[in-house]
Amino acid sequence: MNDKIHSGNPDQAAVREVLERWLAAARQSDLDGIFSCYADDIVAYDAVLALRFVGAEAYRKHWKACIEMCPGPVLFQMGELKVEASADVAFAFYLLRCGAVDDKGVEQASWMRVTVCLKKRAAGWRVVHEHFSAPFDPQTNKALFDLAP
Amino acid sequence: MNDKIHSGNPDQAAVREVLERWLAAARQSDLDGIFSCYADDIVAYDAVLALRFVGAEAYRKHWKACIEMCPGPVLFQMGELKVEASADVAFAFYLLRCGAVDDKGVEQASWMRVTVCLKKRAAGWRVVHEHFSAPFDPQTNKALFDLAP
Repeated sequence: MNDKIHSGNPDQAAVREVLERWLAAARQSDLDGIFSCYADDIVAYDAVLALRFVGAEAYRKHWKACIEMCPGPVLFQMGELKVEASADVAFAFYLLRCGAVDDKGVEQASWMRVTVCLKKRAAGWRVVHEHFSAPFDPQTNKALFDLAP
Repeated sequence: MNDKIHSGNPDQAAVREVLERWLAAARQSDLDGIFSCYADDIVAYDAVLALRFVGAEAYRKHWKACIEMCPGPVLFQMGELKVEASADVAFAFYLLRCGAVDDKGVEQASWMRVTVCLKKRAAGWRVVHEHFSAPFDPQTNKALFDLAP
């Protein structure tokens, strides 16, 4: 229950390894790499278009469409990461600066929020739920892309 | 609460009890009740205005402002709840239909997404992180309030 005890535990290290592997794959738009981190029965709340995606097949179609919408070098930068893990249940949350370099070479990026929930399955730790979002302005209902931590 | 299946796992039952207590308090705009579910060091990603709120004091100010923005009977309805708990780390996620009854008696509501992360502390289970959001349309950047599960 003490955070310091958990910070040294091997489960927390294993969960961080999954997050790092996911981040490296996401930067390369590597769908196989990204989905090697996910459980087949993942339930995803993504930042755009739908309330939720149920199952890896539906979520992969969405990821593919997002990658096709934003081709070129992808920027993903983690901030304020917190990880908690027990023997078979874990979660992590962080701010994610994401964006891309436009055709004039200018970086277009904004901060999003990410929560990731994992379970240890027979094959190892897998993401069973993730939640990406941008907050919105209740006056305009527009997503807020100019916030910084 | 729709999904009220209490499994044999006592930790999962205890986490569901916190969620039910939170829901009852949120429906009553009962700030003390809501915050009895939260850890002092909660990090919250709310649906509106800010990237994140760090600590119960900052988050309570935000909750108070939101309640003042939407006075009157509050609608909160959970759907598709999933809970996972181990001895001291747990998470839950669900869709939340939230809104209010306007001054003509008409219900104005939309579905949001919620992820809740908990730790078992000396005083019992506490929410250490929560994430509320609505997805947005990448063409208009507007939050999507007309989606239904």
